[in-house]
Amino acid sequence: MDRFAEYRGVARQLGVDAVGLVPGPNFTRALGQAFGTNERPKLVIVPAEGDPAAVMPNLELGSWEQVNFPGETFDWMDQTGYDDAFVALARHLPLTSLAVEGQVMRVFVHHALAAAYPGLRIMDAEREISGLRTVKTDADIAALEKAIRISEAALADTVAQVREGMTEKQVESLLVRALFTHGADGLAFPPIVAAADNSARPHAHARSDYQIQSGDALLIDFGGTADGFCADITRTFFVGHATDEAQDVYATVLAANEKGHAVTKAGVTAHQIDDAVTGVLEASSYADRIRTKTGHGLGREVHEAPYIMRGNSEVLEAGTVFTNEPGLYRLGGFGVRIEDDILVMATGCRSLTTFPKDLTVIG
Amino acid sequence: MDRFAEYRGVARQLGVDAVGLVPGPNFTRALGQAFGTNERPKLVIVPAEGDPAAVMPNLELGSWEQVNFPGETFDWMDQTGYDDAFVALARHLPLTSLAVEGQVMRVFVHHALAAAYPGLRIMDAEREISGLRTVKTDADIAALEKAIRISEAALADTVAQVREGMTEKQVESLLVRALFTHGADGLAFPPIVAAADNSARPHAHARSDYQIQSGDALLIDFGGTADGFCADITRTFFVGHATDEAQDVYATVLAANEKGHAVTKAGVTAHQIDDAVTGVLEASSYADRIRTKTGHGLGREVHEAPYIMRGNSEVLEAGTVFTNEPGLYRLGGFGVRIEDDILVMATGCRSLTTFPKDLTVIG
Repeated sequence: MDRFAEYRGVARQLGVDAVGLVPGPNFTRALGQAFGTNERPKLVIVPAEGDPAAVMPNLELGSWEQVNFPGETFDWMDQTGYDDAFVALARHLPLTSLAVEGQVMRVFVHHALAAAYPGLRIMDAEREISGLRTVKTDADIAALEKAIRISEAALADTVAQVREGMTEKQVESLLVRALFTHGADGLAFPPIVAAADNSARPHAHARSDYQIQSGDALLIDFGGTADGFCADITRTFFVGHATDEAQDVYATVLAANEKGHAVTKAGVTAHQIDDAVTGVLEASSYADRIRTKTGHGLGREVHEAPYIMRGNSEVLEAGTVFTNEPGLYRLGGFGVRIEDDILVMATGCRSLTTFPKDLTVIG
Repeated sequence: MDRFAEYRGVARQLGVDAVGLVPGPNFTRALGQAFGTNERPKLVIVPAEGDPAAVMPNLELGSWEQVNFPGETFDWMDQTGYDDAFVALARHLPLTSLAVEGQVMRVFVHHALAAAYPGLRIMDAEREISGLRTVKTDADIAALEKAIRISEAALADTVAQVREGMTEKQVESLLVRALFTHGADGLAFPPIVAAADNSARPHAHARSDYQIQSGDALLIDFGGTADGFCADITRTFFVGHATDEAQDVYATVLAANEKGHAVTKAGVTAHQIDDAVTGVLEASSYADRIRTKTGHGLGREVHEAPYIMRGNSEVLEAGTVFTNEPGLYRLGGFGVRIEDDILVMATGCRSLTTFPKDLTVIG
């Protein structure tokens, strides 16, 4: 099988000469091996017809030989820079238009391409290129499930150790160590461990100067990676006790989360899911605490297509995995978010996340 | 003190209307808090004169209020997209030229700027903007030393546990857990744990299907982060015993590394250091095993300016921190790299790395 065939298809579909890939999830998927992003440009061009070509730093050639690249590679040394490699690429593979991953390619590569290919039309085809990853293979789903099992085991270990008086940072440290103990390859993203008012910030940073108190909400949003795929799970706990307000907010968010599971099946749109989930929050007395859309696709990247939000008419296909993560956030008060990773199926869906969602008092 | 004054200075120096910052090390430095990079554009524009302005996702406003931003912020919701926020920014703050971080800003933000500001000249000023981070403050150095101490403690723990028959992946897992046990906030980069022929690939991936054997080189290149700063350390060990070739190669690399320490002081150029270090390798019988330059700056990013290579006439100032990491790599054989993190001082230098460098047989 030609591993570049799908990318050629994207080039033809968009009517451009080629697709350009830089290190990141699509690059890893196409090449079968991860390459880092740093100050050294690395680029693969897949033309609509014919063999691909690459620009690679000379010091990566030892790793590059492992991918059995079927085209020309133009390498360059740190000491002489990469301009000549781009010029050689342009001579070897003339182009007038190129589709790139706008969320991945950085400006310095864009500029290097523009310099080597005067007049080149560079279009942002993030949606089309990364869209090839939306429907997961069985192997992808197995990797996602592995990442999720590891993450859930780490969360269970961590929650069992949380006590009043700990800082968010201490809980974060317990969580991260537990992730690696259970076999994570890495962190899908820096974990969010946020108590009390900090939990009302959707992307809060763990504090070392606040001690968790009885009555606090404790929101933990995190995930490990396994075999190149990401988990992304949120649970919100209450320390010591849950106030009446907390219980009511929690029940509202849980109902919205469960609504998301109920309406998901192949053929519904991203809009419809967000509309159903957010509709539950809007119908509550906490509508002014809504801050986010329902969720996002999940796979090699922790945020990827499809984005589960109103206005997105994208139809979900069986095999798509996304996060269902409604939340309610009262700034200065507390926030609650409950996030599952859901696999779209022909008739319904399956939650890959199985960590309990009943309101849980800990510590 | 005006935390944006230096960025205004860059705009004036380059003769552009403003500097644009996106989440990453410069953004964190300017705003005092880290913001993630994802599919949601976040941007701060610092004009040569007057107040800055920002584009931020609505859901980040809770975190954004913590930075006490002194200018206008144009926020946007996932459901309606960010185009209007960029248009409002352009109306509020007209620009004809903008300097950006080419290694950090991604193409989709470049395109959003180009759409909102027709005819805008966008120049890559990575060197000038990130160059503001080259000379470290005392607080920066304290954070670097903290990251390095944590990393060295983790390495010592790990090496004490390595045994023949372990896989590279198992050693990697020990190392990562030890980093978090010793207090790392995160990983500066995915660690490289490479034995035998894998050690000859400068950016190798740890294998789960190879068991470490007696006589293997074991190269470990890794670092934890602390308080936003990165450690980057490499040591190469030998398992069971070191062959004569291994001992000779090791002595050559160590001599090159020590040469780097000997020639470093404020006022020398990056070229001079690489020339001295690489000169030692070239004068040996292993010149054909050279694959990399001597090193790179180290700070909030694990690879940053100055790049320690021939042809770079940048003069190093006191307070600059860089990696001194000569190596020799025989593809299909083994590699040796010894990497220290060095602080440039007025008269000489200080190695922030103190882990022993004598040839060490482990297991």
